[in-house]
Amino acid sequence: NSSSEVVEGPPRRIRVFDCRPENKQVSDEVVDASGKNLEEFLQDISKVFSVGKKETYVLTTTDRRVIDDDIFDKLEDGITLQLLRTADQELPAPTQEHIKYVPHYYTLVQSGMYEYYASEGQKSLPYAFAELVDNSLSATAKREGHRIIDIRLLFDEGQGKHAVAVIDNGCGMTSKQLNNWAVYRLSKFNRDSSTLHSDHLGYVRPSPVPRSLNSDISFFGVGGKQAVFYIGQSARIITKPAASPDVHEFVMSKEDFERKEKNKEDIYCGVIRNRKPGDHAHIVAEDELFLQALIAEEDGKDSFTAVVITGIQSDHITYLKQYFHLWTRELAHIYHYYVHGIHGNELSQSSKDNHKQSDVDIQITLVEKAGKQPRSVNLRDVSTDMQTLYINSSAASFEFRVQAQGDATVEGLIRYHPFLYDRETYPQDPYTSIGPADEEDDECLVLNPEGRGKRPIFECFWNGRLIPYTTVSEFEWCARPKKAGAVPAECYNRISGVLFTNDRFPVSTNKLTFMDLELQLRDKETIFTRVINGQDQRVKIQREFTSWLKECHEQYDKQIKFMGFQGVTSRSDV
Amino acid sequence: NSSSEVVEGPPRRIRVFDCRPENKQVSDEVVDASGKNLEEFLQDISKVFSVGKKETYVLTTTDRRVIDDDIFDKLEDGITLQLLRTADQELPAPTQEHIKYVPHYYTLVQSGMYEYYASEGQKSLPYAFAELVDNSLSATAKREGHRIIDIRLLFDEGQGKHAVAVIDNGCGMTSKQLNNWAVYRLSKFNRDSSTLHSDHLGYVRPSPVPRSLNSDISFFGVGGKQAVFYIGQSARIITKPAASPDVHEFVMSKEDFERKEKNKEDIYCGVIRNRKPGDHAHIVAEDELFLQALIAEEDGKDSFTAVVITGIQSDHITYLKQYFHLWTRELAHIYHYYVHGIHGNELSQSSKDNHKQSDVDIQITLVEKAGKQPRSVNLRDVSTDMQTLYINSSAASFEFRVQAQGDATVEGLIRYHPFLYDRETYPQDPYTSIGPADEEDDECLVLNPEGRGKRPIFECFWNGRLIPYTTVSEFEWCARPKKAGAVPAECYNRISGVLFTNDRFPVSTNKLTFMDLELQLRDKETIFTRVINGQDQRVKIQREFTSWLKECHEQYDKQIKFMGFQGVTSRSDV
Ligand SMILES: Nc1ncnc2c1ncn2[C@@H]1O[C@H](COP(=O)(O)OP(=O)(O)OP(=O)(O)O)[C@@H](O)[C@H]1O
Ligand SMILES: Nc1ncnc2c1ncn2[C@@H]1O[C@H](COP(=O)(O)OP(=O)(O)OP(=O)(O)O)[C@@H](O)[C@H]1O
Ligand SMILES: [Mg+2]
Ligand SMILES: [Mg+2]
Repeated sequence: NSSSEVVEGPPRRIRVFDCRPENKQVSDEVVDASGKNLEEFLQDISKVFSVGKKETYVLTTTDRRVIDDDIFDKLEDGITLQLLRTADQELPAPTQEHIKYVPHYYTLVQSGMYEYYASEGQKSLPYAFAELVDNSLSATAKREGHRIIDIRLLFDEGQGKHAVAVIDNGCGMTSKQLNNWAVYRLSKFNRDSSTLHSDHLGYVRPSPVPRSLNSDISFFGVGGKQAVFYIGQSARIITKPAASPDVHEFVMSKEDFERKEKNKEDIYCGVIRNRKPGDHAHIVAEDELFLQALIAEEDGKDSFTAVVITGIQSDHITYLKQYFHLWTRELAHIYHYYVHGIHGNELSQSSKDNHKQSDVDIQITLVEKAGKQPRSVNLRDVSTDMQTLYINSSAASFEFRVQAQGDATVEGLIRYHPFLYDRETYPQDPYTSIGPADEEDDECLVLNPEGRGKRPIFECFWNGRLIPYTTVSEFEWCARPKKAGAVPAECYNRISGVLFTNDRFPVSTNKLTFMDLELQLRDKETIFTRVINGQDQRVKIQREFTSWLKECHEQYDKQIKFMGFQGVTSRSDV
Repeated sequence: NSSSEVVEGPPRRIRVFDCRPENKQVSDEVVDASGKNLEEFLQDISKVFSVGKKETYVLTTTDRRVIDDDIFDKLEDGITLQLLRTADQELPAPTQEHIKYVPHYYTLVQSGMYEYYASEGQKSLPYAFAELVDNSLSATAKREGHRIIDIRLLFDEGQGKHAVAVIDNGCGMTSKQLNNWAVYRLSKFNRDSSTLHSDHLGYVRPSPVPRSLNSDISFFGVGGKQAVFYIGQSARIITKPAASPDVHEFVMSKEDFERKEKNKEDIYCGVIRNRKPGDHAHIVAEDELFLQALIAEEDGKDSFTAVVITGIQSDHITYLKQYFHLWTRELAHIYHYYVHGIHGNELSQSSKDNHKQSDVDIQITLVEKAGKQPRSVNLRDVSTDMQTLYINSSAASFEFRVQAQGDATVEGLIRYHPFLYDRETYPQDPYTSIGPADEEDDECLVLNPEGRGKRPIFECFWNGRLIPYTTVSEFEWCARPKKAGAVPAECYNRISGVLFTNDRFPVSTNKLTFMDLELQLRDKETIFTRVINGQDQRVKIQREFTSWLKECHEQYDKQIKFMGFQGVTSRSDV
């Protein structure tokens, strides 16, 4: 074994095809090259394929490189070679080369990189956070009482490296489910329900609920992975399902992938740590102190999941601190109806008293240096997101339902923002100008001289969650008519709207856009019905809408209220 | 071995952790369960961990399911189990569970599904084709003489199933490169250059060329895979590199993945067939006859790559036939400057004579039933794409260069479309209304009463290739000024523009949008310079532009040419 002739190395089994021209059929054999040098290997080959003593031959790769000592040393286990008369001879018959093509780890690590960008500028991060909130909403769907989703920005350097944690009191994951979490593109639709561990005995679609607020917003098996690697470079998932006494913990990191690639280890192998709650004996690094505190919180929790992201890009940190107000508001916008319930955020006390509060608590805490008071907001308390502005500046609403192909349904809502005294009340989008300087003065409704102007009417929610980049400008029946009609044209600029679709309208994997919502709705088969007090009305939608709009104008617009009527005066001077 | 006690089955090695409460440290052993039943396995366990004869214990999964005969039979190779006193006892110390999380095959099969949709409607398919054209452009970059990219729609049922083939006379791939083709997210940037086979000894960025027409448009390692699985369900890649006498052939299909999943085989294992050119002995299925013809064409070709897609979605087939004119025009738009050269498609003979023709031939052929003449178009002959319309309706152009951060550069071009006689010559976008009925009448320039109207000024090309969903509306210096200036306001509506960026401006993986082009260009550090005859001018861009625009107005707009001036008349009647 220590003779100078022997090449040391890992096990190498090489498949060799005998392609010498006289063969009609090429035959192949797997020859063990472990610990052999080229000369020894060639001797084996000669034996295996009965190569004549005086025969000339070459051994090549399937790229026709002639194997010499150098190349031989670098051959990897499982490679295919060809035995030829000459390096450029024709193959007498095909050879079959076995290959592997496991996706590169960038599939995970870079997945979010090009997904959550926003051509508008800096809004991308909230959409990555939204993926984690989506997961927590799904996980807490069946929880009785408060569903708590806790987003913590742990930026106190005294406690270790910067970290972002999203913690929920949802159902948690078994170790098999945690394993599945890590499998890219494995979703509730293609998860194997036959294996031992699976609790997903086939996916059951939830039954319809108002506004499609069904918390069923896991779809593609990519969101969590894309989000964590968009936000940072390492994710630690800590989870406990209710039925088990154990906490399961798994770390996936770019660094880890790089190490495995370098050592030619299997890229997609990892280790789940199963341990008792509160046990942080494995957290020893000084820059991970904050993890000890997090883990200490586990005691007494029945079930939970925490996603802890580190290696956070430094410009993300800057953004998250500097634009705290802005991105939390964007999250409040996305989850408006989850956080406030089907009626949305009605600020007046009487409406609040009438409607049961939602039990979804999404709270965000930013911890900076020791001594500095953490900044904290519950999304329920945000009142500057567009939906809140729409709801509270509207005087009346028009409800409708859309029935598209199959069981694709949409609930719709149009709100009227009247002209009051000397101005339009249609709210201005506080996001149109982004910058820290602007942050101060958009706490109040900024009024818009043109009403809606050229903006689209409808924002669109999918299973209750905003799909931020898709809007629907209008439908035929609510568009300003070409000819002047019974209602002044400017009234058509005083409406905003919301569409609530179910999951029959596909969205892109990053949940930023619908694939073909407008196209589907424009289909001739699509039926619009007005809804009054929850009842579908069999009526002509356009006539209904126009008369509703007319009513709104007459009742709520203040510029046309003639007061103190005194008689008719005819002017002859014009 | 055939005793009734023995359970037959595949090899199973099970890792067992001894977690009985008295242990401070848990120890683990791999125990071979192949061919054993539960009773035998438990006997082995007792021995290995010295379990006392009278001791009670349970064996559970890491999800704390107690192993019974049923579960035992289903245990998979490599699974981790725990030896406990009771099923709900606390773990005395953590256990380490080894898991695998190879991405699901949907990573490939569904990758394109959500990538090439187009909210505008039916334009998505040309963008999938574009990925294959991108690859062929890259592959033919160094070819002397004509670079031929042949897109064939083989829809003649007499020749077998429907197929789409994209064939180029590029450099081809070695079998290792073909293997790499299949690896999702493996790109020229992260390809391992250390291994034996690699010809990519580190990626070298091409040096700057005019309009960034460098053919270097492979970037993410996803395009080909996304495109083939967006178009169909199976891809056969056939390729031959110049240096080798062999053709390499590889098939990747949804069906194949499904079969491997069902049989619990490794998902990402496959076989490359290495064979001599023209050898189609392996094509025997009657519905693959067309492949024999394709393979017969290989003889005499020095190097080539053919991507043959089958299992094509039926609505794609309908679209490709019905909207042939439309999607070929969209491709002509995307590759306008590759097909026509840096000056674009100048229709006047004199311009044609002046400029060397490009050597990129992208031809598309639609073969329907036998007897019916194939429909065929060379993209060079398309003259209804927007760039052709812009170029040929413009009277003058204004060139500039943009220097952004680092070596991010942009060449820019603004064209003037004068008012002539009684109408604007700014061309209308023929895509704005899509439908087969429209196809007939957009062969000619449709004139636009408002000039550009509210449309953005600039279309944007990245490494010479259109990024279709990103436009840039304007820059400060070419926007219509708020106050009336030296130039009539409507002249600002008579300009169109093009931006040619290099690859320093990142695009999304589907190449449909820039990530932050506008943001980058709006940066204060960004410098605009006018270019005259290829020379940068150190001048104030806004002043230059305004005086250019004024000149254009005075020279080319026909409505303000006062002819036959006769004197001043004052009217007192108005
Ligand atoms: N907070 C959580 N609590 C419990 N289970 C979770 C949680 N987050 C993720 N999971 C599980 O991990 C799986 C993968 O999550 P991931 O977000 O990557 O994909 P997905 O939610 O299935 O699909 P999508 O791409 O739509 O997000 C989920 O389907 C869910 O089963
Ligand atoms: N027609 C072709 N001729 C030669 N090589 C090709 C051809 N098509 C693809 N390849 C090789 O296969 C690789 C993978 O192609 P694929 O389109 O999937 O990704 P990419 O081009 O690297 O990146 P992108 O995601 O930007 O398209 C390419 O990098 C190239 O090396
Ligand atoms: Mg998710
Ligand atoms: Mg490509």
